[in-house]
Amino acid sequence: MMERQKQKKGPLEGVRVLDLTRALAGPYGSLILGDLGAEVIKIETPQEVAMEFGSRTPLDPRYSYGGEDVYFLSVNRNKKSLTLNLKVPQARQVFYELTKKSDVVFDNFRPDVMEGLGVDYESLKKVNPRIICCSLTGFGPSGPYKDRPAFDLIIQALSGGISITGDPDSSSPPVRAGIAVADLAGGMFAAHGIMAALYSRERTGEGQKVDVSLLDGQISMLGYVAAYYLVSGVIQGRIGTRHQNNPVYGALKTKDGYVAICAHRGPFWRNLCRAMNREELINDPRFDTDMKRHQNADEIWDLLGEIFATRTTLEWLGRLLERDVPCAPINAVDAALNDPQVLHSNMIVTLKRPEGGEIRLVGNPIKMSGTTQQPYGYPVKLGQNTEEILQGILGYSRQQIEELRRNQAIG
Amino acid sequence: MMERQKQKKGPLEGVRVLDLTRALAGPYGSLILGDLGAEVIKIETPQEVAMEFGSRTPLDPRYSYGGEDVYFLSVNRNKKSLTLNLKVPQARQVFYELTKKSDVVFDNFRPDVMEGLGVDYESLKKVNPRIICCSLTGFGPSGPYKDRPAFDLIIQALSGGISITGDPDSSSPPVRAGIAVADLAGGMFAAHGIMAALYSRERTGEGQKVDVSLLDGQISMLGYVAAYYLVSGVIQGRIGTRHQNNPVYGALKTKDGYVAICAHRGPFWRNLCRAMNREELINDPRFDTDMKRHQNADEIWDLLGEIFATRTTLEWLGRLLERDVPCAPINAVDAALNDPQVLHSNMIVTLKRPEGGEIRLVGNPIKMSGTTQQPYGYPVKLGQNTEEILQGILGYSRQQIEELRRNQAIG
Repeated sequence: MMERQKQKKGPLEGVRVLDLTRALAGPYGSLILGDLGAEVIKIETPQEVAMEFGSRTPLDPRYSYGGEDVYFLSVNRNKKSLTLNLKVPQARQVFYELTKKSDVVFDNFRPDVMEGLGVDYESLKKVNPRIICCSLTGFGPSGPYKDRPAFDLIIQALSGGISITGDPDSSSPPVRAGIAVADLAGGMFAAHGIMAALYSRERTGEGQKVDVSLLDGQISMLGYVAAYYLVSGVIQGRIGTRHQNNPVYGALKTKDGYVAICAHRGPFWRNLCRAMNREELINDPRFDTDMKRHQNADEIWDLLGEIFATRTTLEWLGRLLERDVPCAPINAVDAALNDPQVLHSNMIVTLKRPEGGEIRLVGNPIKMSGTTQQPYGYPVKLGQNTEEILQGILGYSRQQIEELRRNQAIG
Repeated sequence: MMERQKQKKGPLEGVRVLDLTRALAGPYGSLILGDLGAEVIKIETPQEVAMEFGSRTPLDPRYSYGGEDVYFLSVNRNKKSLTLNLKVPQARQVFYELTKKSDVVFDNFRPDVMEGLGVDYESLKKVNPRIICCSLTGFGPSGPYKDRPAFDLIIQALSGGISITGDPDSSSPPVRAGIAVADLAGGMFAAHGIMAALYSRERTGEGQKVDVSLLDGQISMLGYVAAYYLVSGVIQGRIGTRHQNNPVYGALKTKDGYVAICAHRGPFWRNLCRAMNREELINDPRFDTDMKRHQNADEIWDLLGEIFATRTTLEWLGRLLERDVPCAPINAVDAALNDPQVLHSNMIVTLKRPEGGEIRLVGNPIKMSGTTQQPYGYPVKLGQNTEEILQGILGYSRQQIEELRRNQAIG
């Protein structure tokens, strides 16, 4: 849809996405597309019927801003909002007409919902053969679990991710990755599929269907851990902060906290020995090759534990950084978000609310030399762009819009 | 480079990537591009000087196959291998000539290394203005930490991810996400940037530079957790399996293990009450709205704990699935990889080794209707495609290749 290009907002400038996704996984995928310049039209039901997870209505007043849920705001900036009740036939007609003027339809319903609404890929490609449809589901479009509901935790549990996370020396309950990795990675893989299909369409002229499941995404990210099991039959358990195949990797207790180090390779190991004032360890026959350090991993780790207990975290960070040893403090969320490198990289952005006030959120991690990152748009209100879209893109008259509203096709 | 298209291998068919990345983050990004049909040429130094992390040489015989490290094999299938010692001037010339015939140059060195080798974006765009260069670094091309070394754990620690992972009721050591989320997400964001630049180039004719850092990636994935802090000042700590804004979410202890549930929304909550044979809870005035369940989250969780302790995990899964309550067992790696849905989705793939034998690895989570996933190529040996690439792509004679070898430009 090149004719829509006016100013260069990003590499996906001119790409229009009809975004039916909810909660976290899908909206994170469309957030990535929007940050790269796509026009994302979030399609919402006219009234939020329930206070569903990830909806606009706040549950907790602490995590509310301007009457809306911060969880929702965090993942829905830079998007337009169109209300459309797809269960009403007139709304479906509006959707078909928008499909003709769009590039991507993105949903994260369970399978068959799109078909039930008459807006599945088979129906939409008749309307626009160039349309790219991406369905992000819990388990994929077929198979034994296809109709099951899924959330991040369910996928972290099923995929084995939880089983390798946590303290190996403890019988404490299972723990998940603190970040919602299954949801977020699902959105990221969906964005890959959509962009690959867009690129392909430039050459073939045809759209296609992309299917991504949260479960497949986490199995992919199990990567080398999966491969270790598939080749050896050895089942990795909870890993703490350490690494199955890496003897000098983990968080060590200091006088007043912890410091994370990764000093496995020869040069890093030697730098570590110097930073500890223990140069004699460099030639210690127990540790003088990568292989021997691997074979004597427990011995080395115990020794490092003794040495690190003698100084504070800050002292260690100073010594380690000076010697180019990979290291870090275990930052709490506030320390991480106020970190000078994070601020330098413009990862904390301020969005002005049109009614006054402002909100801070995290920014786009993908930096492109061809465009300057545009200011991020404040998350719009429910249905804020409904008339603008119906008039501007579809050329509807005020009368037609009124009729749609009377039929409860729009809000 | 459309003229290279012969058979439809995937949406990125015809895209040639010069892949200088090592270890995990970069190679996972180029794995995604390769699975989508790009031709990935892995450029390696002629001899592996050290047994560096992520190299071909195995540290642990259990995680070795055909004399190579399974960690390496897991992330380097479907790629070609060209040896090139970029410190030798003749090798640099080869690289420039390859750049003329390629679409993407992808590296994960520290900043300035590419410049030192004369293969940074500013140099390469003079050779080919259409080239897209992507640098995946720990901390970005500038800023206070730009020269620091980074590994997955370092980024999980700095970004706050570790601080929200783990058992909140325990003073046990910090734990990381078991999957290497910082590395893998970094590779994924890099793949986004590369594909967005490829799409953009179809319209502008120009390449560009893409910069992604592991740290920015994890700050992005901190998402709503970051937003909660930035708006409220409340710092989330270790979350266990629960959720800050979600009262019926987590792993519950059963008679013989744990089961994960997410039953926050009204319909799921009512289904859960029925699955527990406790229908009276649906109208219990403490729990009969989402808001009240949020306000009485601890009370509800204690009650669920008592109820779930009375049956086995298998019994609960049966009852919950029957009632459409989102739930899952905490699968170990073997259970996850043998799960019927995972097998149904072709996420476990078998690669035949040319010399005999086969290896099983995880497959591509991005399914595209426009192409059938091609069989994945077995990871090739160091430099296996050197002559084929120099002859086939650059038209070098046997004599020229011999001279490059004599000069140690190639292996």
